[in-house]
Amino acid sequence: MSEADGAQMVSAGLVVIGDEVLSGRTKDKNIGHIAERLTEIGIDLREVRIVPDVEEDIVAAVNALRHRFTYVFTTGGIGPTHDDITADSIAKAFGVSIDIDPRARAMLLEYIAEKDLNDARLRMARIPAGASLVVNAVSKAPGFRIGNVIVMAGVPRIMQAMLEAVLPELDKGRPMLSQTVLADAKEGDIAAPLAEIAKRHPDTIIGSYPFRDEDGRFKTHLVVRAREQALVGAVADEVREMVQGVQKLLGS
Amino acid sequence: MSEADGAQMVSAGLVVIGDEVLSGRTKDKNIGHIAERLTEIGIDLREVRIVPDVEEDIVAAVNALRHRFTYVFTTGGIGPTHDDITADSIAKAFGVSIDIDPRARAMLLEYIAEKDLNDARLRMARIPAGASLVVNAVSKAPGFRIGNVIVMAGVPRIMQAMLEAVLPELDKGRPMLSQTVLADAKEGDIAAPLAEIAKRHPDTIIGSYPFRDEDGRFKTHLVVRAREQALVGAVADEVREMVQGVQKLLGS
Repeated sequence: MSEADGAQMVSAGLVVIGDEVLSGRTKDKNIGHIAERLTEIGIDLREVRIVPDVEEDIVAAVNALRHRFTYVFTTGGIGPTHDDITADSIAKAFGVSIDIDPRARAMLLEYIAEKDLNDARLRMARIPAGASLVVNAVSKAPGFRIGNVIVMAGVPRIMQAMLEAVLPELDKGRPMLSQTVLADAKEGDIAAPLAEIAKRHPDTIIGSYPFRDEDGRFKTHLVVRAREQALVGAVADEVREMVQGVQKLLGS
Repeated sequence: MSEADGAQMVSAGLVVIGDEVLSGRTKDKNIGHIAERLTEIGIDLREVRIVPDVEEDIVAAVNALRHRFTYVFTTGGIGPTHDDITADSIAKAFGVSIDIDPRARAMLLEYIAEKDLNDARLRMARIPAGASLVVNAVSKAPGFRIGNVIVMAGVPRIMQAMLEAVLPELDKGRPMLSQTVLADAKEGDIAAPLAEIAKRHPDTIIGSYPFRDEDGRFKTHLVVRAREQALVGAVADEVREMVQGVQKLLGS
């Protein structure tokens, strides 16, 4: 699909790999970043899975998602230590061999002196057969892409650099646009008229997100999403008008 | 399983429900909290899935995980608006009916005046047949538990209150314990001896997490995990000794 053919949907899944996220030791910072960047450029993130450093679990998650979505991204598990098993797991998922890739080895040598390029560090040059490399502007050890699966590091700064390196090559759809309307009302006060608006506009997605402001007052963010700016604007106007009506009734 | 029978593993899956997390609008704060709490009390979080507000996706995720793990937690989608479809999706996943539950309605009336209990708010009292309720100490509208699935709110404060309300009823295993060793060395410098230690102790899990300190120096946290304190201590000692040897070699 080309960017011109923007009516088609481009979707993605994300597999976050790491015991440390599931144990709570590390608070993931990659999901939010990837979600935001993909949304901006017109790739819809449709599912995320967090799995442990267990080959069988990584293979299952990647294979489940890669047949459902245009792209699958993974984060984590591509360092030099024994618990970094992502590259081998991806090779297994695709049923291809894996070995030290001379291109990846050359990249490592831009950053690491040859005398320090021990067997452990060379593990970072293990790339499944047929994969292309994803440049790592931060610390050189590359990610890779095989088929529709893009394998990135788990360290946020490195992951972000790899994501930016790979995004230009990917197909994009029309970005999902959004407008947020603030309602000085509780969700339960606007739910019925909001549902009517949602029903009238099945081509938009309307989300309702309650929160408390600094004074502890319950308010609601209403988010209208669609791929056409004019539609988003028109439906957001309807929501705004509805909210003003409800606020008047409530005297807020 | 009773707590006395602590040798058995108690596992959990988590399904985070919400378009807003997948679009990047909302940065999830629940996964880290749940991961940490479950780990503390001896329930191993084994997989997390983030899915959109789409019935089919919620049903698929819940059904996939509830047959694999002791418990499945869900967050999000139990408010009063049209996009809150979790309760209905869970009923569908279990193949049971769903209706307004008088117990849940009574809870709502502790917080909401009868005149304000409109149809939208009553949606929050829709509970699948056969479910028990999970008390909400913050804003009353309850979560629920059906079979091994525990359904909680998405707003962090409310989710946390529901989690604390339900944890005492759950089976627990022996908590996974951990000790962290700080290495003033890069991952690649310690990877080989670390792998040897890991190989000698297949009953522990050893993770390696690189980071940069404030001065931009690469260091590594090595985390030893097991369910026996003595084992964790002994292996952490081995790791510490190995690290000191490597640091001496590197002159760091």
